[in-house]
Amino acid sequence: MVPRYTRPAMLAIWAPENRYRIWFEIEALACEAMAELGEIPKESARTIREKGDAAMAAFSQTDLDRIDAIEAETRHDVIAFLTWLAEKIGPDSRFVHLGMTSSDVLDTCLSVQLTQATDLLLADLDTVLAALKKQAFEHKYTLTIGRSHGIHAEPTSFGLKMAGHYAEFDRNKKRLETARAEIATCAISGAVGTFAHLDPRVEAYVADKLGLKPEPVSTQVIPRDRHAAYFCALAVIASGIERLATEVRHLQRSEVREAEEFFHKGQKGSSAMPHKRNPVLSENLTGLARLVRAAVIPALENVALWHERDISHSSVERNICPDATIGLDFALARLAGMMDKLLVYPDQMAANIESLGGVVHSGEVLLALARAGVLREDAYRIVQRCAMETWTKLGKPGFKTFRENLDADPEIAGRIAPEVLDAAMDSRSHLKAVDDRYKLIFGEAGPQA
Amino acid sequence: MVPRYTRPAMLAIWAPENRYRIWFEIEALACEAMAELGEIPKESARTIREKGDAAMAAFSQTDLDRIDAIEAETRHDVIAFLTWLAEKIGPDSRFVHLGMTSSDVLDTCLSVQLTQATDLLLADLDTVLAALKKQAFEHKYTLTIGRSHGIHAEPTSFGLKMAGHYAEFDRNKKRLETARAEIATCAISGAVGTFAHLDPRVEAYVADKLGLKPEPVSTQVIPRDRHAAYFCALAVIASGIERLATEVRHLQRSEVREAEEFFHKGQKGSSAMPHKRNPVLSENLTGLARLVRAAVIPALENVALWHERDISHSSVERNICPDATIGLDFALARLAGMMDKLLVYPDQMAANIESLGGVVHSGEVLLALARAGVLREDAYRIVQRCAMETWTKLGKPGFKTFRENLDADPEIAGRIAPEVLDAAMDSRSHLKAVDDRYKLIFGEAGPQA
Amino acid sequence: MVPRYTRPAMLAIWAPENRYRIWFEIEALACEAMAELGEIPKESARTIREKGDAAMAAFSQTDLDRIDAIEAETRHDVIAFLTWLAEKIGPDSRFVHLGMTSSDVLDTCLSVQLTQATDLLLADLDTVLAALKKQAFEHKYTLTIGRSHGIHAEPTSFGLKMAGHYAEFDRNKKRLETARAEIATCAISGAVGTFAHLDPRVEAYVADKLGLKPEPVSTQVIPRDRHAAYFCALAVIASGIERLATEVRHLQRSEVREAEEFFHKGQKGSSAMPHKRNPVLSENLTGLARLVRAAVIPALENVALWHERDISHSSVERNICPDATIGLDFALARLAGMMDKLLVYPDQMAANIESLGGVVHSGEVLLALARAGVLREDAYRIVQRCAMETWTKLGKPGFKTFRENLDADPEIAGRIAPEVLDAAMDSRSHLKAVDDRYKLIFGEAGPQA
Amino acid sequence: MVPRYTRPAMLAIWAPENRYRIWFEIEALACEAMAELGEIPKESARTIREKGDAAMAAFSQTDLDRIDAIEAETRHDVIAFLTWLAEKIGPDSRFVHLGMTSSDVLDTCLSVQLTQATDLLLADLDTVLAALKKQAFEHKYTLTIGRSHGIHAEPTSFGLKMAGHYAEFDRNKKRLETARAEIATCAISGAVGTFAHLDPRVEAYVADKLGLKPEPVSTQVIPRDRHAAYFCALAVIASGIERLATEVRHLQRSEVREAEEFFHKGQKGSSAMPHKRNPVLSENLTGLARLVRAAVIPALENVALWHERDISHSSVERNICPDATIGLDFALARLAGMMDKLLVYPDQMAANIESLGGVVHSGEVLLALARAGVLREDAYRIVQRCAMETWTKLGKPGFKTFRENLDADPEIAGRIAPEVLDAAMDSRSHLKAVDDRYKLIFGEAGPQA
Repeated sequence: MVPRYTRPAMLAIWAPENRYRIWFEIEALACEAMAELGEIPKESARTIREKGDAAMAAFSQTDLDRIDAIEAETRHDVIAFLTWLAEKIGPDSRFVHLGMTSSDVLDTCLSVQLTQATDLLLADLDTVLAALKKQAFEHKYTLTIGRSHGIHAEPTSFGLKMAGHYAEFDRNKKRLETARAEIATCAISGAVGTFAHLDPRVEAYVADKLGLKPEPVSTQVIPRDRHAAYFCALAVIASGIERLATEVRHLQRSEVREAEEFFHKGQKGSSAMPHKRNPVLSENLTGLARLVRAAVIPALENVALWHERDISHSSVERNICPDATIGLDFALARLAGMMDKLLVYPDQMAANIESLGGVVHSGEVLLALARAGVLREDAYRIVQRCAMETWTKLGKPGFKTFRENLDADPEIAGRIAPEVLDAAMDSRSHLKAVDDRYKLIFGEAGPQA
Repeated sequence: MVPRYTRPAMLAIWAPENRYRIWFEIEALACEAMAELGEIPKESARTIREKGDAAMAAFSQTDLDRIDAIEAETRHDVIAFLTWLAEKIGPDSRFVHLGMTSSDVLDTCLSVQLTQATDLLLADLDTVLAALKKQAFEHKYTLTIGRSHGIHAEPTSFGLKMAGHYAEFDRNKKRLETARAEIATCAISGAVGTFAHLDPRVEAYVADKLGLKPEPVSTQVIPRDRHAAYFCALAVIASGIERLATEVRHLQRSEVREAEEFFHKGQKGSSAMPHKRNPVLSENLTGLARLVRAAVIPALENVALWHERDISHSSVERNICPDATIGLDFALARLAGMMDKLLVYPDQMAANIESLGGVVHSGEVLLALARAGVLREDAYRIVQRCAMETWTKLGKPGFKTFRENLDADPEIAGRIAPEVLDAAMDSRSHLKAVDDRYKLIFGEAGPQA
Repeated sequence: MVPRYTRPAMLAIWAPENRYRIWFEIEALACEAMAELGEIPKESARTIREKGDAAMAAFSQTDLDRIDAIEAETRHDVIAFLTWLAEKIGPDSRFVHLGMTSSDVLDTCLSVQLTQATDLLLADLDTVLAALKKQAFEHKYTLTIGRSHGIHAEPTSFGLKMAGHYAEFDRNKKRLETARAEIATCAISGAVGTFAHLDPRVEAYVADKLGLKPEPVSTQVIPRDRHAAYFCALAVIASGIERLATEVRHLQRSEVREAEEFFHKGQKGSSAMPHKRNPVLSENLTGLARLVRAAVIPALENVALWHERDISHSSVERNICPDATIGLDFALARLAGMMDKLLVYPDQMAANIESLGGVVHSGEVLLALARAGVLREDAYRIVQRCAMETWTKLGKPGFKTFRENLDADPEIAGRIAPEVLDAAMDSRSHLKAVDDRYKLIFGEAGPQA
Repeated sequence: MVPRYTRPAMLAIWAPENRYRIWFEIEALACEAMAELGEIPKESARTIREKGDAAMAAFSQTDLDRIDAIEAETRHDVIAFLTWLAEKIGPDSRFVHLGMTSSDVLDTCLSVQLTQATDLLLADLDTVLAALKKQAFEHKYTLTIGRSHGIHAEPTSFGLKMAGHYAEFDRNKKRLETARAEIATCAISGAVGTFAHLDPRVEAYVADKLGLKPEPVSTQVIPRDRHAAYFCALAVIASGIERLATEVRHLQRSEVREAEEFFHKGQKGSSAMPHKRNPVLSENLTGLARLVRAAVIPALENVALWHERDISHSSVERNICPDATIGLDFALARLAGMMDKLLVYPDQMAANIESLGGVVHSGEVLLALARAGVLREDAYRIVQRCAMETWTKLGKPGFKTFRENLDADPEIAGRIAPEVLDAAMDSRSHLKAVDDRYKLIFGEAGPQA
């Protein structure tokens, strides 16, 4: 992920320093467990822990360069690290990595990094949820037109729109928690997962200390269906970001103007057109969503490794693990800020509801006619006729509002009382279930009108 | 999905008849609820139920044709169905669909169809699990070579391989159960989800009767993040199928011959080469996995509908819902049969373990040297030298087994007892953790040696 | 592809009858070539051709059933067909398929089917191009607002918008022609492509008669990079459909109303809201684009077949070949009709240009200031100030047009003549390059104002 | 793309320095063109060119920091650059970017970067082609078993295998050349592509100087179908890499051992198993292919920008443009080296051909029987019986070769001469068309036996 879309905390998780720190931790914990089991000297385990901790605390660019130099020769990253570590620890290093295979370290480390990354993402989701709840409560009774197919349908509340997105991000949080559990496993099982040279209790010990669970069958690697499921969860979240971003982009259109992204002082919308205030954040989020989603296919293709493992997944994961989590972290943070500071224009929302001459109340009128005993097919025909008459003359000579056309319609005359039509034209009737839904979503009805 | 990969029970779920049956059920249940609430006459609800049930029971091609004819005129499928239904029910039909919008019917129906489909898939997964467990138990102690990178690594048990796939399909079952819950929601909330013309208790009633949960915010539609998550689950399962299929394809290779798909009497492998026995089932499963996975991207693209909905998702779902569930149902059934009847050749497995002159025991020897006090780096060098000597002369003059080379190595001489090397060369040491793992996976250790 | 999105001519290409017809043609042509080369009796080749032609001409459901029955036993589709053919031809059938392998027939047949399908798609593209050219010429001088980020930018011509889509579809036509050449190859090369039992001249003869080219190296199959490239071309076309469909959906939005899909008499937009006129065609095209694109990933995954071939690609292609071509054929035909009959509202376009108080001319004013010697940064600041003043008071008390604000601005006063501002506010200045571009795109400038 | 898979020359193309250099070049060229047309003073254009060239020549981290600082305030990258440039150029800078829009610079720059990147990729492809041709010529007559379904089929030549991959990469080169032409266009057309403030001759001049073509209709941006087509070409190439990598992985399998990746001195295959020599390069290429392919879907999703443009494509392209070209550059270079140094083992290939007791000649025997007048169905039955007898007893007591079984078969006895069977069992018959194919692929037959 390019630096422009990278936040430091997430970047640090994927930095070599963090990886090596985790690698050492896994090796040190495994030594402790083996010492407990009497397989290696306790004294050696203690030395490994102490000298290793010291080496990791003092870890610098010099160490990175040294490890890179060894890898350039051995062409094997874990061996390079172990060689460097041996230089720091001395003779006791012969007990490090005993009976283990590289993947024990690599895969368990990836589990730790992914859980660390996920914890940041979960916190990000909380900020998104907070921003959405704030808008939902603030605009619980802000009437706005609901749209299907981009066409005005019936009024709704802007708060309810926000509540809908809140509900989706709440589901996304649950999905991410499930995904976190998927990848929070530990494998210390040896070359092909048989524990030939290891006691399964070593795995159990390391897993417990790292907050992971032992992987039931780890072949040589932790099975990649877990990671595929993880990236699927990120992709669904990304798509939820895109849905909300698309909503904001629509609301900010010149013709709609119901909401706007906050425009920073000094910000320039266009080098050529000084009047421009563009929804660049939400457009950017739309693009980031595509990027995060793009990790799904390679993650799925990574599942079918050959036999007990091949290493084709590795180059994929070296990229998509940081890219997708960094990109999603940035996107969620941007989304939270954007929604928190979103400029909402209730007056324009009210004006838009009425901008089609009242035809948005056609459904309610249809029902009123049905309740008055008109056959559904007839009612539909009458209402469509009146609505179309209004619609086709919008902004033109001879324009009459939907209500005017209804009042003048011979088939309606006398069949329906004016008060009934008044009620049918009142947008506030669309707010009656808001309390009910808020309770379902937020566990509380929120502010009362 | 082409008929070749279609099983009748799954096909029936996606047939128009089933769809119309569910549509009617939703409408009838909504009428019952409204009658309970006093919004429409109880007598009318009863008539709708009775005449509708009769019409659905007698539903035939004539009815399909009639609905199609109405749709050809109205260009709206739900209106076409309601018009047909009105013809069957008579005047009381004016209470049908009252205050509802098409999506209330369409989306709730899709939820029902998807749960029906998922129930078949869950049953399929059980048959796969049963076949894998059978092989795992039968071959718990069948030694076979474990391979990383396609290269012999260390021995393992064929049962443990099967257990690993069992564990993955067990995870897949949990994922599918979660996915089922994702899409098992009901929306009867009107044009833009405000319940403007409906009581939320209608939704609750219909949901309950259909085994669904009410959708917290349904805009006009049930939010598509649910369906995206559902197709992700199918894709992860498909990838698990591909992993197992790839394993079988490898095992059946001419050079490996450790297992074979059952070959039907009369089956012809090739029109030109009568000797061919090809792993066509597992290759077919590999392709089907690609197809099922291909639904993920459009399903994710479906999430970001405009405002309260647009209908771009519809054409996608008309295809991917049947295609992916039918394809996966067929694939799982085929997989279960293939694994149940898989021909396993333990003798060939044993022969393959030894085919590299014993170098597959190099890891164990490395550890034995380390335990004997040799520095890891030295031990690695010695063992690699002996192993490479064996490896490079495989099948050539001057070939010596790995053990022979070890015995002759001056750096080993005297440092390690022959019995220790004997033990290191014994494949059975790789079976010691099988009980432990079986308990973790199956909840029981399985048959004892 | 579901019947709803299927047109008969394209469906027929993928029907079993057409496949068997092509299979026979390939076999008969190969026999003719072998007879020419003296490898089989000429009389036999003639008998094969005559009896086979007669069998294919009389081909009925009975034959389909017979072939299916044989395949149920042999589990091999080509052998089943050849067995059926032998029943029709008699003893001379022993010369049929001589030295060939099933893939010779299957892959060459697929090439023929794909070229047939492509020819329909190319004709479809011509109808799209015709509709776009018609609109481009009709609206060459129809002013409309250009939008970036969904925000009004500067005026343009609706004809030029159409011309841009025309240019894209013209590129798409070239891409499809290139893609057609990619898959128009023939393989009659035997089991692993070595012509061990065949003369390469047989392949050359069959290729020539079928309008194909010989495949340089066909292993057992025609290499799948060709098909992957083909599906990529379809996906790019699908994305072009989506771009145009998205444009129409935007233009039809209630707040924009610059264009509308033709609304059929009797068509119903919504079961609940009689006033609705929804852009359902373009929304449908958006979904179909997702479906066609979804074939790309499995097509790419099909490339890496094992060794001289595996059959994993087969189940994929049995689905994506018909699905993607049928879906694209339907989409292109729908698009052509939609664009041909599109209702365009120039008055509304004109009104929308002016709806933001003239700020859309800010870029021209900026340049006028720059030409008058104002430093760019200053000019930008002045123009943005005046534009924002207009923008933020849109529809509110105290609103002044952009021109009024410019006229009142102290930093502008005296620096720029009113006529210069008049010219800067004239949308027609944006039409001056239309002739130039039309010549580039259509090879002619089109109608003159 | 992580540094591990990055080569410096490709990285430099995507570095900010190169981007700014191209931005300046575009601006300077546009000024020159405007000066030629008399729209700005020639002296100013000269000053811009000279001071700008000097600034770019002296470009350092200080400049990068300055531009970043301005962007942090303006939130607009092009404006930030222009402001920095103005600081360097002085008052004449007011003629820079006159009448242009940011996208004119951004998109034309991207075209230049992509053509630069493509030229590196084309050179990479040449190295791959050279390595493949070398192996094809060296092993033109090296017999090896052809495999379908992973099962031995018939002999072929290892050179012909290589020639097949050569032919695919030759097609890939043509595809990349076509893709290069797709994205080699220039847009200097103003805010919505109308040339309102620009003369089209400016665009023509800049395009010509940069080796690009003018974009017929550029809305605000160069249409993204071009870029989508470009990434499709990269994806098809990536899939070709995967096919060849998969072949090498198979050939290096422990049971096959027909070829091996070059193993560096000092390289370690496994931290636990010193005997391992793993095909890590080809496995890595398999993963890189997945990564490059993953750019296709977001690139396709980028096509349908809203109206004259939205900026959702930008974040996508900031990542996939460098990632996919860097990844593919690395992969092609790695592939070329791997194939050039591939260790090929003809003896093992010969041994493998014979390892199934001769059944790989069953097709030839089938034909011999057919030529001898045996009905195809009978011949098939006889040959399959003899082949299966050999196959099922492979490595078991009572094993007889295919030839022995044929010789003993009562239905064959007397119907076919021993010399005919001898010929049918001779692998060299599979080499007869090699010359013919080499001429088709390489334009020359290559070395003669």
